[in-house]
Amino acid sequence: MDELQELDSRFAQIRKELADNDLTKFRESFLDLHIYEQGQFYQSITEEERALMYSYLSPKELADMFDLIEEDKETLKEYLSEMRPSYAAQMLASMYTDNAVDFLNLLGKKETNKYLSLMSNEDVAEIRELLHYEDDTAGSIMTTEYVSIVANQTVRSAMYVLKNEADMAETIYYIYVINQEEQLVGVISLRDLIVNEDDTLISEIMSERVIAVHVGDDQVDVAQTFRDYDFLALPVIDYDDRLLGIVTVDDIIDVIDEEATSDYSGLAGVNVEEVSENPVKAATRRLPWLITLLFLGMATATLISKYEVLVSEASILAVFISLITGTAGNAGTQSLAVAVRRLAMNDDKKNNFLTIVVGEVLTGLVTGAITGITIFLIVTVWKGNPTLGFVIGIAMMAAITVANLAGSLIPMLMDRLGFDPAVASGPFITTLSDLTSVLIYFNIASLFMSHFM
Amino acid sequence: MDELQELDSRFAQIRKELADNDLTKFRESFLDLHIYEQGQFYQSITEEERALMYSYLSPKELADMFDLIEEDKETLKEYLSEMRPSYAAQMLASMYTDNAVDFLNLLGKKETNKYLSLMSNEDVAEIRELLHYEDDTAGSIMTTEYVSIVANQTVRSAMYVLKNEADMAETIYYIYVINQEEQLVGVISLRDLIVNEDDTLISEIMSERVIAVHVGDDQVDVAQTFRDYDFLALPVIDYDDRLLGIVTVDDIIDVIDEEATSDYSGLAGVNVEEVSENPVKAATRRLPWLITLLFLGMATATLISKYEVLVSEASILAVFISLITGTAGNAGTQSLAVAVRRLAMNDDKKNNFLTIVVGEVLTGLVTGAITGITIFLIVTVWKGNPTLGFVIGIAMMAAITVANLAGSLIPMLMDRLGFDPAVASGPFITTLSDLTSVLIYFNIASLFMSHFM
Repeated sequence: MDELQELDSRFAQIRKELADNDLTKFRESFLDLHIYEQGQFYQSITEEERALMYSYLSPKELADMFDLIEEDKETLKEYLSEMRPSYAAQMLASMYTDNAVDFLNLLGKKETNKYLSLMSNEDVAEIRELLHYEDDTAGSIMTTEYVSIVANQTVRSAMYVLKNEADMAETIYYIYVINQEEQLVGVISLRDLIVNEDDTLISEIMSERVIAVHVGDDQVDVAQTFRDYDFLALPVIDYDDRLLGIVTVDDIIDVIDEEATSDYSGLAGVNVEEVSENPVKAATRRLPWLITLLFLGMATATLISKYEVLVSEASILAVFISLITGTAGNAGTQSLAVAVRRLAMNDDKKNNFLTIVVGEVLTGLVTGAITGITIFLIVTVWKGNPTLGFVIGIAMMAAITVANLAGSLIPMLMDRLGFDPAVASGPFITTLSDLTSVLIYFNIASLFMSHFM
Repeated sequence: MDELQELDSRFAQIRKELADNDLTKFRESFLDLHIYEQGQFYQSITEEERALMYSYLSPKELADMFDLIEEDKETLKEYLSEMRPSYAAQMLASMYTDNAVDFLNLLGKKETNKYLSLMSNEDVAEIRELLHYEDDTAGSIMTTEYVSIVANQTVRSAMYVLKNEADMAETIYYIYVINQEEQLVGVISLRDLIVNEDDTLISEIMSERVIAVHVGDDQVDVAQTFRDYDFLALPVIDYDDRLLGIVTVDDIIDVIDEEATSDYSGLAGVNVEEVSENPVKAATRRLPWLITLLFLGMATATLISKYEVLVSEASILAVFISLITGTAGNAGTQSLAVAVRRLAMNDDKKNNFLTIVVGEVLTGLVTGAITGITIFLIVTVWKGNPTLGFVIGIAMMAAITVANLAGSLIPMLMDRLGFDPAVASGPFITTLSDLTSVLIYFNIASLFMSHFM
């Protein structure tokens, strides 16, 4: 709490310096903030105050702050439109290229071309190089600000290169060794440079077995490599082993968050990322799923409608509809979550199609049997009707088994067909399992009708 | 694919060297592997082969590999029991302390004491220091292998300290500056050391506004600080500002994964982490939830049972039970996911209790109205009965609104009461919403009974 208050009073102080037009003091206190806090400050002030900031800070100084800002398209457009276009372009050019490209992708083609036309040819080339990579690939999250050296030099000369390039590079903690064809041939960490003698040759101490990712690799696989090896950065190469860029761990944390959010959203059938204060907007985003599922649910209603005569004769059957569909839906959701998770684990040995689906069906049989026996006992005692209990119990067991089959089979099939299995949402599985459960329930009930009435 | 094959043939080669008792060649090729690959190799061979490894490698060499191994309790116990106890103890003592403590926590008290009794007093003290921190706090994920210096020295002498301690420290990319009371007074990155002149004083270039976390802070908050500031490591202090340890970004990735898995598991009502090949084991873990929800579902069944006479008179009502409970359940799951997510975002301004719950109820009214009108039209056309359509439509709208209320209110209440809101699972919300939906549906139906029959 103390720290937050301290930051608040600092912010108040800086706003005052801005209001007083005290350039020197403002620069001193503002630049003393951590870059993230600079962004917090910037986002907390008025448009007029921001306009003053643009005249007090260089595009490069603003760029450092923008490297850490995460904003939506509208706010970003607003910020950039407040600056003179040439100032904004220079600011974008001074950012780390991967972050600038993220912003430009958000802004769209027209704005991008506007800003690119105001940059130097060199900056445009760098940005264009990254702009064309497909979403969700290593190429789309890499940056070109890395340090590379050649192998036939000493630790001393490598340290000299490093000192000169430190200001430009996103990380200086790994130095990549390339040959004349720009192919990646080795890597050395700054730690290794520091502990070795100044006269040691790089070729002697560099690691020649470099773990690298290909530019077209899925970002999820890149994240897994980071997890496995505990790296802070990974080099990105093309199919001729040429070094194109690096991916840094902060971008990987974003990837991991993004994937987790998308899996979570998938399971719930709602995009939890787009949180809105506006109920109408929120409803607009949720309705497509709800209405689609309503139509799928209509299939279940139509099916029950075929058994209306049965229900009017044995109204007791209506009592257990929601219990059976509900429980089977719960079991199906469990299967779905486990299957999606196992697919995400990316372990080919354990992810055999049959292993997972058969495993889930067997699990369904066991949980179904025990749940079925439980409900059999409950109904027998409650209604004093063992035959009815038997019908409900058997239907429950079958419905759960089929729900587990659907819950595992559907994501597996989607994965095989090249779709993201996480899109098979929990609500979809429960709605589908409503249909199969009702079908099973009424068929079994018709069969034993004469016995329990 | 090529790389995997290359690794496979390397592994085959190393196994051969092991079988040939060729100590020199084995050590050369094994130690040339990346540490993560060493672990992969170790986990892929037989117990006899591993026994040979223990005689060919020092405990320290094995410790580097164990730092990256992630294993369950049973496998870990097996590995350690294969080693001589003193070798295992020395191996544990040579690991980074945070990782060794993770292993010991997994092994349990008895085993921990066995290994501690075989370590030096110094190692025991280091481990004991970390063993007592509560789960999920900064203290439980920090390590004590950091580099600290005092302020009144030059860059040159700081670099000298760094060189000497580089081998022991988990990261050398941040150097922490402490005073005589061991209080944290500054931080300097290795990047800063490198770009500054050798004679510069540390006190001149260090940053005095150090972002640090407290030892008792929740690990989720620590992860958020990493996300905000893009740090590679953060210092951990006690309430007298004394430096106790550091948290590194690789541990934070584990925390983020853990939280995502736990949220995902919560939503599905199943622990997706404990994936088992054995259907009986898997069933044992899922049944508690399923049976608990079955009993909650029995409340719904009992409720419907009260309306059995109504159903026998108007069997058409049974047709729409699963449609209404299903759709409301879907809407409730969406609300739940959004509410849990917003709580996780940790933004106090937006997380006002009333803002979220009222927002969800309003969203429920809008989605409910549109879904209600849709089903009204469908039923009117399908059954040619506008009054019945009206009853179903109104019931749908009310059921969805109440489901949104439950879906947001329950996680908010749990959060207020100090529980993890993510434990409020999707299946729980859908089962609860079945109950309220049925209650709403039959009450509205009774009211209009005389009109639609």
